[in-house]
Amino acid sequence: YKRHTITLLPGDGIGPEVISVARNVLNLAASVEGIEFKYQEVPVGGAALDLTGVPLPEETLLAAKQSDAVLLGAIGGYKWDKNEKHLKPETGLLKLREGLKVFANLRPATVLPQLVDASTLKREVAEGVDLMVVRELTGGIYFGKPRGFGTNENGEEIGFNTEVYAAYEIDRIARVAFETARKRKGKLCSVDKANVLEASMFWRKRIMAIALEYPDVELSHMYVDNAAMQLVRDPKQFDTIVTNNIFGDILSDEASMITGSIGMLPSASLGESGPGLFEPIHGSAPDIAGQDKANPLATILSAAMLLKYGLGEENAAKRIEAAVLDTLNKGFRTGDIYSAGTKLVGCKEMGEEVLKSV
Amino acid sequence: YKRHTITLLPGDGIGPEVISVARNVLNLAASVEGIEFKYQEVPVGGAALDLTGVPLPEETLLAAKQSDAVLLGAIGGYKWDKNEKHLKPETGLLKLREGLKVFANLRPATVLPQLVDASTLKREVAEGVDLMVVRELTGGIYFGKPRGFGTNENGEEIGFNTEVYAAYEIDRIARVAFETARKRKGKLCSVDKANVLEASMFWRKRIMAIALEYPDVELSHMYVDNAAMQLVRDPKQFDTIVTNNIFGDILSDEASMITGSIGMLPSASLGESGPGLFEPIHGSAPDIAGQDKANPLATILSAAMLLKYGLGEENAAKRIEAAVLDTLNKGFRTGDIYSAGTKLVGCKEMGEEVLKSV
Ligand SMILES: CC(C)[C@H](C(=O)O)[C@@H](O)C(=O)O
Ligand SMILES: CC(C)[C@H](C(=O)O)[C@@H](O)C(=O)O
Repeated sequence: YKRHTITLLPGDGIGPEVISVARNVLNLAASVEGIEFKYQEVPVGGAALDLTGVPLPEETLLAAKQSDAVLLGAIGGYKWDKNEKHLKPETGLLKLREGLKVFANLRPATVLPQLVDASTLKREVAEGVDLMVVRELTGGIYFGKPRGFGTNENGEEIGFNTEVYAAYEIDRIARVAFETARKRKGKLCSVDKANVLEASMFWRKRIMAIALEYPDVELSHMYVDNAAMQLVRDPKQFDTIVTNNIFGDILSDEASMITGSIGMLPSASLGESGPGLFEPIHGSAPDIAGQDKANPLATILSAAMLLKYGLGEENAAKRIEAAVLDTLNKGFRTGDIYSAGTKLVGCKEMGEEVLKSV
Repeated sequence: YKRHTITLLPGDGIGPEVISVARNVLNLAASVEGIEFKYQEVPVGGAALDLTGVPLPEETLLAAKQSDAVLLGAIGGYKWDKNEKHLKPETGLLKLREGLKVFANLRPATVLPQLVDASTLKREVAEGVDLMVVRELTGGIYFGKPRGFGTNENGEEIGFNTEVYAAYEIDRIARVAFETARKRKGKLCSVDKANVLEASMFWRKRIMAIALEYPDVELSHMYVDNAAMQLVRDPKQFDTIVTNNIFGDILSDEASMITGSIGMLPSASLGESGPGLFEPIHGSAPDIAGQDKANPLATILSAAMLLKYGLGEENAAKRIEAAVLDTLNKGFRTGDIYSAGTKLVGCKEMGEEVLKSV
């Protein structure tokens, strides 16, 4: 038996429901493949705020760091929306990413044939979309200093942030992106705003430098405003996209909505070494929390990414992915992806159906 | 006869073609309404670079400042793509916006019933979309200092920019946005990233302060990543959107692509006083430049915005808008909006057809 320690961070809203379902799936896939997991469940986000007064308790970060991989549900909710910055659930998530040094955020956006009609895009535009956004996650304007509030030279009140990238930060995310593209269709599109921003000019320069190490990958560059358009016009043109933290936040959400089923989409956040952080890209959905309505498939697929990217357990990962497809093929759907002629199920029942196929 | 001076900036690529057509339409609409125009045509962007070595010659800015309104075609092209920052066509455009102090950029995105099938979105999602993005245009990360290249405290090379907003910059764009929403359906959505960025927290605080002056407008707030999703999921939920320079750049392009006909979309950039800048939102399209294939309607509609917002000539503006609809109703289409059963025409012929209806 191989053993791994997994930190579970259920978080807020629908987080606990989807984590509990995903844990069962993870367990079964692992035991079939001869893997054993030890779990530690610790609070983060609003749940941590309510329990301990801070959105990322030291014990939570320590537990995460000492484990082999971290699976997160979701964080945030209306309740904490008015909190000051250091007491926001989101700040807990940012500190977790920073603390785990997971600089590379992989966000696949795939339109499954079973769910193509869930997209608001016309069938012929949505069909076959299969792209991966590689987002830089621990740098740029999210973490850049100086930042804050103050007054300018005319004595006027201001709010400010710094978009800044150092060469090593771009180089390492570039390598992850080129490696990712190489394992996919070999096409990488780097998105920036190099016609206006120095940070983007520098980004482009470093991407081009690292490209020399990957002559087999076809590299292109696109301005972020154009990328936002092209994702709507013809998302199939993209294979792998690499971009900075804030552009990646915007474009990966846009890309995910293009698939029409954000309740299906997982993500992986990886560092040079140490545990990766795996989470569905959907939010905490406070309006349906605790009602057994959430779609657990994004978290289940995040567990598959955890197995594949976090632990190198490819077989167990494939087993879960196949089980999800199988369950969809049998017609089971949660409310967010339901359409006439399919079988509407809740979060738990969806989990049980997936278990049958693992 | 009322007299106005108009500066024409044909610029690059398809710019000269669409400006020449729009000028004819402007002339006819004006003369029917008893208005007389004096034109001055001056170079900007790549055209100015080739002629004078800089993307915004002093004479061009002066001419623009001394006129009553400025109509721009498009700027940029492959030829100058590798230029250093101060020699990029785009830098000419940014300096023009800065020089004219046009801080408020109005970008309507409307799906005309005649063109609903041009959208990649399903008919029921695209039909009836009618939104206006009010983008802050002379502040934020586009102009913020410090900016540039350097080394950080570890001696590593960096590229950096500053996102910064002063209270007065937010207040004045907020007022334009509230006034705009008031004349539309009375709904304003302010887009920011206040869960992460101090500049956005400050933005939201000022927007809420100015909202007190507009109790009749329904204000909401949305994070930029969610806005990028919601534009794809259900664009009809939006009436007026207000946001900063960079988010506005991204979201207005996304919104325009959602209409499926960016060759149709105009924009207006306005300051406190002084001439406004009017331009189609499409680019210079170097690949079809000089081939009489460009769609001149976005520039013609920009001329209508010039009449309405720039000169207060509402009647002449309405005349042009009606002529454009009339021409579409007759079935005339340029290549970008062509569909089976309509009449394919070039740039000039489209202009002539519009003239017949003015
Ligand atoms: C919750 C928020 C801080 C976060 C981000 O902006 O990174 C989220 O939008 C995401 O994309 O994971
Ligand atoms: C050309 C470029 C500098 C410009 C911008 O980013 O503002 C363009 O994208 C626009 O939106 O008008």
